[in-house]
Amino acid sequence: MTEPTLDVVALGNAIVDVLTDADDAFLASRNLAKGGMQLIDQDQATSLYDAMGPGVEHSGGSAANTAVGVAALGGRAAFIGRVQDDQLGEVFAHDIRAAGVTYAPPQAKPGPATARCLILVTSDAQRTMNTFLGASAEIGPDDIDADLVASAAITYLEGYLWDQPLAKEAMRRTTAIARDADRQVAMSLSDSFCVDRHRDEFRDLVEGPLDIVFANEAEIMALYETDSFDAALDAVRGKVHLAVLTRSEKGCVIVAPDGVHEVPATKPKQLVDTTGAGDLFAAGFLAGITSGRSLSDAGRIGAVAAAEIISHYGARPEADLKQLIAGI
Amino acid sequence: MTEPTLDVVALGNAIVDVLTDADDAFLASRNLAKGGMQLIDQDQATSLYDAMGPGVEHSGGSAANTAVGVAALGGRAAFIGRVQDDQLGEVFAHDIRAAGVTYAPPQAKPGPATARCLILVTSDAQRTMNTFLGASAEIGPDDIDADLVASAAITYLEGYLWDQPLAKEAMRRTTAIARDADRQVAMSLSDSFCVDRHRDEFRDLVEGPLDIVFANEAEIMALYETDSFDAALDAVRGKVHLAVLTRSEKGCVIVAPDGVHEVPATKPKQLVDTTGAGDLFAAGFLAGITSGRSLSDAGRIGAVAAAEIISHYGARPEADLKQLIAGI
Repeated sequence: MTEPTLDVVALGNAIVDVLTDADDAFLASRNLAKGGMQLIDQDQATSLYDAMGPGVEHSGGSAANTAVGVAALGGRAAFIGRVQDDQLGEVFAHDIRAAGVTYAPPQAKPGPATARCLILVTSDAQRTMNTFLGASAEIGPDDIDADLVASAAITYLEGYLWDQPLAKEAMRRTTAIARDADRQVAMSLSDSFCVDRHRDEFRDLVEGPLDIVFANEAEIMALYETDSFDAALDAVRGKVHLAVLTRSEKGCVIVAPDGVHEVPATKPKQLVDTTGAGDLFAAGFLAGITSGRSLSDAGRIGAVAAAEIISHYGARPEADLKQLIAGI
Repeated sequence: MTEPTLDVVALGNAIVDVLTDADDAFLASRNLAKGGMQLIDQDQATSLYDAMGPGVEHSGGSAANTAVGVAALGGRAAFIGRVQDDQLGEVFAHDIRAAGVTYAPPQAKPGPATARCLILVTSDAQRTMNTFLGASAEIGPDDIDADLVASAAITYLEGYLWDQPLAKEAMRRTTAIARDADRQVAMSLSDSFCVDRHRDEFRDLVEGPLDIVFANEAEIMALYETDSFDAALDAVRGKVHLAVLTRSEKGCVIVAPDGVHEVPATKPKQLVDTTGAGDLFAAGFLAGITSGRSLSDAGRIGAVAAAEIISHYGARPEADLKQLIAGI
């Protein structure tokens, strides 16, 4: 086993977010479940875009946000995901590279446009995401750069990818490459509805090839079909090397072989938009453990990164994260 | 003369802004004059984009921002400008319509992409703009909807358009239509370098067909080639029905037939990014006078709208402007 030359390689959807403010009545009028993510097709995307307010475009994508967060914290990060050869694809590629993440998009092929996520932010800072996956859904096993994956200490997978058969194969191949290279594999469960769609397979992943699983309360409870966080925690204990469970303002719980570590949340300067909170928590945690910090310190770094991201619109850091974690 | 059915029709560049933070060293390394606007070609745009940090995309365009501001203040506004049939064109059209502005893009034709302005925001809140005009530069007299122009109480022109021969013809035709319909014509001088490029023609416009001219200190001093604001004010007095001169934190001076009206600036909640300050001041002033307010009140409304826009990134209002001006 050679020394890794990257800390984290992230595999996920390559998405440009379109953020707009909305109120509860608008969500209700379109039957949107507040706080969730739903996949929409081109027609639904057009219809929703026409109805919503003026937008602002930020690069996004769950695992892509995590890769950017790792780089912002001084880690060496790469991203794998598919865009189209179009303006939003150019924007996505620019933004992630300009943030210090290694990214070489797979060769574009004719087909749908670069993915867009129409994000409706309500005044309670909740975000409701409506994703047109477009070109991103066409990621497949042939798009995986085996050398890149084998070079990273941790391979990080976005649970959302499991919705697409070809992307699922890409995740399986990536996992196999990482394991063959004796690297760690981490995954985010992404969304409780996503867990509902793939519960059995996600359990198999958690109890099988994964070393680290990230989940919020709703996701881990959905995974073990329980209404009790404590029951979910008990259920996951011992099934995976590390279960990193985030609980919003209640902080996070790290279920590790040596016991359970609780880390309080960091209070944000202001609460504006929760988009990316989980992504940046994972970034901080991964940057922490790959730089040799304790599990609790890694959790603290994650909490600071999450607090920064929810203090403004968009899921990419604006403040200097390295400076924010200097005291940890 | 029939009653106008619109308050303001604005003619200008249809641009998507790409905002990023930059420091003075970066501006110096690329020979960029802080606070100014320069036109760049496709190659320069690519080179600068590759070198700059991650961006966030907001719809922009000077006169387009003004039209949005008028609508946000309850006025009836329309916009004329050219985009390409591409993703950024779609973004521009969505955002301006979603803001309540009437906008029917001219039929797209093969050619360059929708205009982009790469805006470098420094920590002193100054913005340095680098504009690739693309499709926007191809606006011409055939793109002007005569009925739309004739229906508006005030036609508002963006000085930047004067850089393009075809756009200049579009401005001349628009002005002629408005005057034939007994409507008022207003223009922003846009930028002191723009004034330097077209001084004689801009003087002819001010002293000829224009009813209202908007200029900041640098622009009005460039127009009359003087280092003294007072000398510039004396020079413009009597040459145009209204000269509305903005002086940043020193407020504005309205030079009118009945004398000179001074209006103090409104202090912003915070000073983040001055992009759009002049555009939104003009919006407030135009919304004020078209709704029958006094010149001083129109200036106050402009000051409030400008203060809102400089308190955040981007040149489109985020707060409820109607609520902000409720006390005026």
